[in-house]
Amino acid sequence: MHDILKKLTEVVEGRHPEQGGDPETSYVARLFAKGDNAILKKIGEEAAEVIMAAKDSRASGLAPPQQALLVGEMADLWFHCMVMLAQFGLRAEQVLEELVRREGLSGLDEQAARKMRTRE
Amino acid sequence: MHDILKKLTEVVEGRHPEQGGDPETSYVARLFAKGDNAILKKIGEEAAEVIMAAKDSRASGLAPPQQALLVGEMADLWFHCMVMLAQFGLRAEQVLEELVRREGLSGLDEQAARKMRTRE
Amino acid sequence: MHDILKKLTEVVEGRHPEQGGDPETSYVARLFAKGDNAILKKIGEEAAEVIMAAKDSRASGLAPPQQALLVGEMADLWFHCMVMLAQFGLRAEQVLEELVRREGLSGLDEQAARKMRTRE
Amino acid sequence: MHDILKKLTEVVEGRHPEQGGDPETSYVARLFAKGDNAILKKIGEEAAEVIMAAKDSRASGLAPPQQALLVGEMADLWFHCMVMLAQFGLRAEQVLEELVRREGLSGLDEQAARKMRTRE
Repeated sequence: MHDILKKLTEVVEGRHPEQGGDPETSYVARLFAKGDNAILKKIGEEAAEVIMAAKDSRASGLAPPQQALLVGEMADLWFHCMVMLAQFGLRAEQVLEELVRREGLSGLDEQAARKMRTRE
Repeated sequence: MHDILKKLTEVVEGRHPEQGGDPETSYVARLFAKGDNAILKKIGEEAAEVIMAAKDSRASGLAPPQQALLVGEMADLWFHCMVMLAQFGLRAEQVLEELVRREGLSGLDEQAARKMRTRE
Repeated sequence: MHDILKKLTEVVEGRHPEQGGDPETSYVARLFAKGDNAILKKIGEEAAEVIMAAKDSRASGLAPPQQALLVGEMADLWFHCMVMLAQFGLRAEQVLEELVRREGLSGLDEQAARKMRTRE
Repeated sequence: MHDILKKLTEVVEGRHPEQGGDPETSYVARLFAKGDNAILKKIGEEAAEVIMAAKDSRASGLAPPQQALLVGEMADLWFHCMVMLAQFGLRAEQVLEELVRREGLSGLDEQAARKMRTRE
């Protein structure tokens, strides 16, 4: 997955008008050209679509076509998150590093909590 | 980043009550125990927080402390997305594969569009 | 405001295709024709736009043009809420009645809390 | 409904700490005290809950208990919208006036579009 996220980041960043992205041929370049609010609105919109696709998939008993739609909506959400990161000069790598940092901490917290519980 | 997402997936999945996650010591196990709507509500909530943190960071001129908060909110959103995927029996890997599949297609579309334009 | 909400409800309900609304001439009739998810997606989208307009207005020091945009986004959100209510066979009146019922209760709760505090 | 919205506005505004609202006894006063982002986050959260309640109600065949829950979630959303308006020095009345203004215009547009169609 490493190379995937790295390559996606490069593709997204390469479509910024400052990097040569062409709003006439690229959806992402158009989003960048529209600016912050257009990109942030997509985050809200795609989050709503993930929620609805999840409800639809559960109602179908997690049937394969509905599960595929849910994966597609999550891909939309993550893709627009990557566009937002690029718009703000940030990278997916930084988000993952933050997740690792927390996971490490909470992992320790949880271990500690269990130890205390075992001792009691 | 490959190992990071893979390890995060394992950590999240390991906290599912059916996998031994303990709602008393783990926030994620508690979320799983509460069910679909509790998890999906967090997607909406964290998406709103990403939007606000992005606006705050822009208003600050992308000052480092605000940028760090934005990365933190995006980490919250992605983390809860991973919890949702696990709740629905899906994995981050499938979302990334979908992104690659699309990127491949749109990459070709874009290339094609450029070629046509060049020929004209 | 009574007549406003009542009239808006009638206008929205009258655009339902079953009530003669024409998807070719009316945006609302088109939304009804698209169904639940199209309408619910608008709720998520408009909520995101309210959040952004509020942040923009605060950043401008609540300047009149930004305040007007915020009122406009809130109007969009409420309008799509009314479309959603009609889609589910509900009316704004029922939402207001629920608000009154709660407000009555919490008003009493608050009074009670103050009394207890005064006695201590 | 007129008096309901007017009274609700007064109740909400009266809970602002500057108007004597007490964060220790009132949920709304606490929200005001926390500031913009806490209030805006609630808009995102309640919008997500409306979407989920609507999906749940549809899945139940619009069964009365699920419809009641949907009305309750919409009441939550509108209530927090009123808190937000008060936080930004705005009133529900202004939002309704904006809705009337638009409805008037689009009503005329729609009428005009129909006339043109009839003539053709």
